[in-house]
Amino acid sequence: MAEITLYHWEPNANSGKPMLALMEKGVPFTSHYIDMLQFDQHKPEYLAINRQGTIPAMTHGDRVLVESTAIMEYLDEAFAGPALMPAGARDRWRIRWWMKFMDQWLAPSFSMFGWKFFVGPNAIAAHGKDALEAAIGRIPLPERQVAWRKAVYGLFGEEEMAESARRIDVGIRMLEAELGKREWLASDQYSLADINGFNLAYAMPLSQPHLANDDLTPNIMRWLRAIYRRPATRECWKLGRTPMAARVDILEQDYIGQGAGA
Amino acid sequence: MAEITLYHWEPNANSGKPMLALMEKGVPFTSHYIDMLQFDQHKPEYLAINRQGTIPAMTHGDRVLVESTAIMEYLDEAFAGPALMPAGARDRWRIRWWMKFMDQWLAPSFSMFGWKFFVGPNAIAAHGKDALEAAIGRIPLPERQVAWRKAVYGLFGEEEMAESARRIDVGIRMLEAELGKREWLASDQYSLADINGFNLAYAMPLSQPHLANDDLTPNIMRWLRAIYRRPATRECWKLGRTPMAARVDILEQDYIGQGAGA
Repeated sequence: MAEITLYHWEPNANSGKPMLALMEKGVPFTSHYIDMLQFDQHKPEYLAINRQGTIPAMTHGDRVLVESTAIMEYLDEAFAGPALMPAGARDRWRIRWWMKFMDQWLAPSFSMFGWKFFVGPNAIAAHGKDALEAAIGRIPLPERQVAWRKAVYGLFGEEEMAESARRIDVGIRMLEAELGKREWLASDQYSLADINGFNLAYAMPLSQPHLANDDLTPNIMRWLRAIYRRPATRECWKLGRTPMAARVDILEQDYIGQGAGA
Repeated sequence: MAEITLYHWEPNANSGKPMLALMEKGVPFTSHYIDMLQFDQHKPEYLAINRQGTIPAMTHGDRVLVESTAIMEYLDEAFAGPALMPAGARDRWRIRWWMKFMDQWLAPSFSMFGWKFFVGPNAIAAHGKDALEAAIGRIPLPERQVAWRKAVYGLFGEEEMAESARRIDVGIRMLEAELGKREWLASDQYSLADINGFNLAYAMPLSQPHLANDDLTPNIMRWLRAIYRRPATRECWKLGRTPMAARVDILEQDYIGQGAGA
């Protein structure tokens, strides 16, 4: 049995961050798939690992670690293998700046769209409303109950969605500008910021074709394809089971124009 | 002239984090006080440093750094002086977990109360509504405009305030439990998590006397007083100019009961 067990959903968003970091480091781990649409994350077996019922979580021997960005820094510091943080303090600051920006500002906006158009409808289709309401009532964190109810019943307000759309627009422009300055997002070497960013952005040419495509955002497209071609990324995305992760195939196209990927 | 210039408001919340880290490291710096209630942070001189108009910001030579937690990690990595992060990966993860929890979950709730009861009313008293509205219109980040309007016109909803109160209650219980496990918050040595936490929590016995006092939260009180007694903390809080920072005096009391500090 591997020393590391990772409890994760798809190679996507927060779950994909430690998955891809482990693959890049070449650290063996036991993969424990948590089916979010079956509410595996709120079942007693998993709550015994992480009582807040959020994913991902990782065990390293008897240590339990949560919070995907902090787990990635832990992995890089605790294990040999290619360094995913450069040595210089300025580069490290820039990486952490981008990770904070993505985690706190950009990811929640992407997530709102993902929940509204994928997670919510799929959960209703899988369970029906009554069973779903019962499942939501068992979620430990009140704010996650609110998020699930909003997604399931389509309760995101117009103003909320408009603000999220604005943030996504601003964020994509910032990413494009930054990736015009250097090969990777926040330093001259492949880093945790790139892993974080790929998990957030790999499907952008599909989900935001009017904002991210080869004409408007050539730097982002170059960067996404470069990460997609890495062996670790290939290996990681093989662990996906739903149409969510399968969207990564869009990056096999040499040219993606506005709306062409939809 | 010092190599480092810090643009900060009071030793409080985000501004106080790099201030106190610099003092602990013994790194000399030029202090540039940004008077938030005079909207110094939105004036052209400061926007030339940080175009988003948020504080704090730090320059190190020609580098401009923002985001208080990332700046603290930068300071610890770029300068000699006492290490503010321990060597072990597990401790480092725990520190980052707490900093994320405080920055993303707890601080916004504290901040909502601070804005409603201190920043908003003081800004109206200082400027009058018309001048204030004009100043708000010049704020670069739309979400900061929203926050200012809410604070100034008392627009935080009952539900929002109740959710913030709930988060503060939960957060204080978590802090108390954690500080029952060891001397400092997230590792056996004084670290960035303690600096982060002190800036968030030093005035809790005054602002939340029903939740944080010597009877209910003896571990938190022991911890706050221990940080308050450090020479760097004394030196740092001397830079405060308003009643906000002066609240730290509460920690000179040997016993603080429920309501006694109010």
